Amino acid sequence: MSDTRLIGVDWGTSNLRVMRIAEGGAVLDSRSDPRGAGGLAPDHFHSVLQEVAGDWLTQGLPVLVSGMAGARGRWREMAYLPCPAGVADLASAVASPDDAPHVSIVPGVAVFEDGFLQDVVRGEETQVFGLDVQDDAVVVGPGTHSKWIRTAGGRITGFRTFMTGELFAAIRKGTILGADMGDPGVDDEAFAAGVQRALRDPPVTAALFSVRVEGLAGRLSPASSADYLSGLLIGAEVAAQVDANHRPVILIGAEALCRRYAAALALGGFHDVRIADGAAATAKGLWRIHEAVSR
Amino acid sequence: MSDTRLIGVDWGTSNLRVMRIAEGGAVLDSRSDPRGAGGLAPDHFHSVLQEVAGDWLTQGLPVLVSGMAGARGRWREMAYLPCPAGVADLASAVASPDDAPHVSIVPGVAVFEDGFLQDVVRGEETQVFGLDVQDDAVVVGPGTHSKWIRTAGGRITGFRTFMTGELFAAIRKGTILGADMGDPGVDDEAFAAGVQRALRDPPVTAALFSVRVEGLAGRLSPASSADYLSGLLIGAEVAAQVDANHRPVILIGAEALCRRYAAALALGGFHDVRIADGAAATAKGLWRIHEAVSR
Repeated sequence: MSDTRLIGVDWGTSNLRVMRIAEGGAVLDSRSDPRGAGGLAPDHFHSVLQEVAGDWLTQGLPVLVSGMAGARGRWREMAYLPCPAGVADLASAVASPDDAPHVSIVPGVAVFEDGFLQDVVRGEETQVFGLDVQDDAVVVGPGTHSKWIRTAGGRITGFRTFMTGELFAAIRKGTILGADMGDPGVDDEAFAAGVQRALRDPPVTAALFSVRVEGLAGRLSPASSADYLSGLLIGAEVAAQVDANHRPVILIGAEALCRRYAAALALGGFHDVRIADGAAATAKGLWRIHEAVSR
Repeated sequence: MSDTRLIGVDWGTSNLRVMRIAEGGAVLDSRSDPRGAGGLAPDHFHSVLQEVAGDWLTQGLPVLVSGMAGARGRWREMAYLPCPAGVADLASAVASPDDAPHVSIVPGVAVFEDGFLQDVVRGEETQVFGLDVQDDAVVVGPGTHSKWIRTAGGRITGFRTFMTGELFAAIRKGTILGADMGDPGVDDEAFAAGVQRALRDPPVTAALFSVRVEGLAGRLSPASSADYLSGLLIGAEVAAQVDANHRPVILIGAEALCRRYAAALALGGFHDVRIADGAAATAKGLWRIHEAVSR
């Protein structure tokens, strides 16, 4: 424990991760727990954290939390910082919950247009600052709600959320397209065909019907239809962001999913794409925010 | 019964309607049954029709069927006719199931691009020909799978299917957006806001996240969110077809839904929109196809 300088907490909607973080941001040890912020009342956070990592919290170490612990109705509501937002902006806005003065929570970041809230992020902002992001890059965090985050001059300048993962699950479960549909990840060609369809043929609510038509035409088997559908939805993201395809892209998230996004990005003309480790990025981002707080 | 010239059958996926049709296409009487084509094996169609309207079928009257009875695996699979397709094309392609030589089934219509099947319709083609459609019009059949059908010179020249109704249900049931969501039809302003958002801010998989952001920002109440979501999805249809907003539009379907589409179309700059009776259009379409067959 003697090398530990910071206890980092990534409190997502459906999962909790606590990390012992060394000088510079390296992860020395970590623990996970299924008690995500989505299911916790404000007065439960402290005791859950004690249960999961109480033995790490006894030494007066600073604790820095990113993610949904700062959402409305959770540990302590943290207002969203407006874009553009950098490490120093996040650091200057951290705050502690009433029941845990040794804990600091990182605020989320928001896009405002003409003063109106347009989009929000909680957690991915910390990951972005843990990456070594080139200027004018795009950081893509695929998943339930995919985030496409643009950066410039070391700050987040804007972002867009796509409900891709959640839509995929809802379409598979709740529509005629899901009948006989398997899991994605078995047919790269069907995935690419879906991406290309979405790129050339918006909008996606019409392109979705092509899952059925391709099946009727004998060009798509039930076993491959999940890949095609996944390609359509991810392709719709790429199509919407294709104006940025000269920028470098960093993907953070589950590796299999990141590989699918990398394939879709290549079809959309993005040529500089790399995959980063999400957990390492979170730890390093927390470390950098902590350093800026301490300054 | 003496005025009856044709027994018309509209066999949808989830509903059956049998009509006694007079010279010219007027409906003299009709009966409905929940045994839609979606749940029937090929050898059940004849007996269901006998049960529902056997007393109407005893007099050697011709029987003409539109809709899903002609789909693969149903009464008799009828190939799709390619666009452009008119009444004479449909009439020349009707055919009888093996077990009912007195019955004729109307084929569906398909869009092909470079020889590849792109979109399909079964049932709405018959409705289109029952309308008195101006040239260069758009016939819109909202619903589970919304159809936007373009016409010219008395023929169907092309169409596009949007999975709007099915997506609305799947999103409400299967995503975070559906939590606390009520039914649509209570807040016209929220509906209009959704349409306008979709018109100015594609793609819809990103615009969908605005249901959540508008709620977070206090601009959308749970009670109004179903209308906003409905507006987003219908607005995505209008946005995709806005290049046709100089054309006259005829809406056919449930009246409350058609009114919502009419409001969305107005926001998209469509200025010549009327709502037609779907059942009457089907009967008249069947009559016109029957007349062309008899010629």
